[in-house]
Amino acid sequence: DPYLKVFTLNSNPELAHEVTKNIGVEMGKSSVTRFSDGEVQVRIEESIRGCDVFLVQSTSEPANEHLMELLIMIDAVKRASARNINVVLPYYGYARQDRKARSREPITAKLVANLLETAGATRVITVDLHATQIQGFFDIPVDQLLAEPILSKHFQDKDIDDIVVVSPDHGGVIRARKMADRLKAPIAIIDKRRPRPNVSEVMNIIGDVEGKTAIIVDDIIDTAGTMTLAADALVERGAKEVYACCTHPVLSGPAIERIENSNIKELAVTNTIVLPEEKHIGKITQLSLAPLIAEAIIRVHEQTSVSTLFE
Amino acid sequence: DPYLKVFTLNSNPELAHEVTKNIGVEMGKSSVTRFSDGEVQVRIEESIRGCDVFLVQSTSEPANEHLMELLIMIDAVKRASARNINVVLPYYGYARQDRKARSREPITAKLVANLLETAGATRVITVDLHATQIQGFFDIPVDQLLAEPILSKHFQDKDIDDIVVVSPDHGGVIRARKMADRLKAPIAIIDKRRPRPNVSEVMNIIGDVEGKTAIIVDDIIDTAGTMTLAADALVERGAKEVYACCTHPVLSGPAIERIENSNIKELAVTNTIVLPEEKHIGKITQLSLAPLIAEAIIRVHEQTSVSTLFE
Ligand SMILES: Nc1ncnc2c1ncn2[C@@H]1O[C@H](COP(=O)(O)O)[C@@H](O)[C@H]1O
Ligand SMILES: Nc1ncnc2c1ncn2[C@@H]1O[C@H](COP(=O)(O)O)[C@@H](O)[C@H]1O
Repeated sequence: DPYLKVFTLNSNPELAHEVTKNIGVEMGKSSVTRFSDGEVQVRIEESIRGCDVFLVQSTSEPANEHLMELLIMIDAVKRASARNINVVLPYYGYARQDRKARSREPITAKLVANLLETAGATRVITVDLHATQIQGFFDIPVDQLLAEPILSKHFQDKDIDDIVVVSPDHGGVIRARKMADRLKAPIAIIDKRRPRPNVSEVMNIIGDVEGKTAIIVDDIIDTAGTMTLAADALVERGAKEVYACCTHPVLSGPAIERIENSNIKELAVTNTIVLPEEKHIGKITQLSLAPLIAEAIIRVHEQTSVSTLFE
Repeated sequence: DPYLKVFTLNSNPELAHEVTKNIGVEMGKSSVTRFSDGEVQVRIEESIRGCDVFLVQSTSEPANEHLMELLIMIDAVKRASARNINVVLPYYGYARQDRKARSREPITAKLVANLLETAGATRVITVDLHATQIQGFFDIPVDQLLAEPILSKHFQDKDIDDIVVVSPDHGGVIRARKMADRLKAPIAIIDKRRPRPNVSEVMNIIGDVEGKTAIIVDDIIDTAGTMTLAADALVERGAKEVYACCTHPVLSGPAIERIENSNIKELAVTNTIVLPEEKHIGKITQLSLAPLIAEAIIRVHEQTSVSTLFE
């Protein structure tokens, strides 16, 4: 289909190439480089007039560079008379700044939505938003894909007995509930509280983990502080083994070291964010979302339902 | 005046502090830092409700980081109920991408204008736009300050006899004309042309430079290739000495080395862009625009004419 064009930017070229292979199209010809002073230079090397264009880019670290690349590419695609500009954002950077937690904070997740629309995006396809409310920050259609079935399948394939799915905080219970349903397992919740100001947090566990294999599930693992402390608490409370999984492996700062030195046996993540070579280490298993994203692109292009992807 | 608030971001804190000193106000209390994963974190540490806020930030290298800092700060200021959000952009990054020179290029200078307005800027104060047309990319007021009087004064103070002001290309003649008028000097123009494809450019000089002191004037010096070749051509054609000046010292890649090894005796620049320590070298003189910017801020705040600043 000459009217379906997929382009990769610089954040996830491997994922993007896997996506085009799954769809059965050539990768669109373009380059996104830098001028001598570091400004982004975009070249689109084939006509896209009247096309349904899909741009694959996560706004992962360096978030500002990746976001500006994307905005400038959208501008170029718009001016080249594309019919639709579909932004495939496997990881939506700045999603955690989705509300004013204190006075005079920005709401950067909303700003990013406005910037994408201003540049000319006509649709966003993304994976596991930190807060589903971010869909409402846009006035264009947003398709949210879910990594849960792929993460669940990874653990199903291990044939583990007596699982308990653990949410590392109260915000993540719905996510844990979904995985527990699929794995036919109960859930437990880590209930952090600070008994008095300036006293360190206590990790209480709601639910039974004694003798069970715990699978902690979260959307983002960033510095891995909460996750590794949760694993300790689970072991202390008698869990037999602890696995962990998340959709978006941000893994900044001390994350890798913490995970390596933790009670976590394996961490399963997806490829919404590229792991730098040195992060492909023992405990981390990366699962590909390329087939899912490819299917979503085909359905958007053919104007069939994306939501049935999750049935 | 408690309703006038100036904040600095990370590109030019020294200039911003000089500006507040010139105005006679304290610097606004805020910090713009990074989360562990590199995302921008903004804190505004005083009330700005109902205030006329001025944000001082050049979108100089790293342009994407500096631009995102600015957009997120604007968002925070807007949500903190400021009355006006005046963006003081001494250097407007991406200004050179102000048109489609070839098919399927972005027009990033226009995109940046849209992004600033979308974030919530209500006015822009800038210095020597690469193309004056960029004012028209905005639907909010744009005040353009001119560095020419300050650069001209620098050379007037040297009491040089027999000056010729040189434009390094045909695009810069109007700028050279202004300086020449003030210095009561004639102008010359470097007329580059490529005799045949794949033959290197010939630098022809229109105007008389023999025995004169040439002052090359440009808005931006980036890699300094054109500038240093122009200096060679001027010396070859009998110029006695060659000075150079520009408003925005981008000075990327080989620029410093080229200038050091060139026929240029002195390069005068302004402080719209910070020179890294290692760039404060022999031949470069940096002139401050702080008094000019301070005066412009006072006039905008008092709602008096900014344009009379140039009479
Ligand atoms: N990149 C980031 N790294 C760490 N914390 C962040 C980041 N972005 C936003 N936050 C903060 O994280 C909190 C939201 O996280 P959550 O409670 O998990 O939704 C807010 O207080 C934000 O200010
Ligand atoms: N940051 C940059 N560095 C070098 N060249 C650029 C940059 N941004 C835009 N350009 C190109 O410079 C040309 C415009 O420069 P000018 O003719 O001086 O206005 C256009 O062809 C742009 O594609």
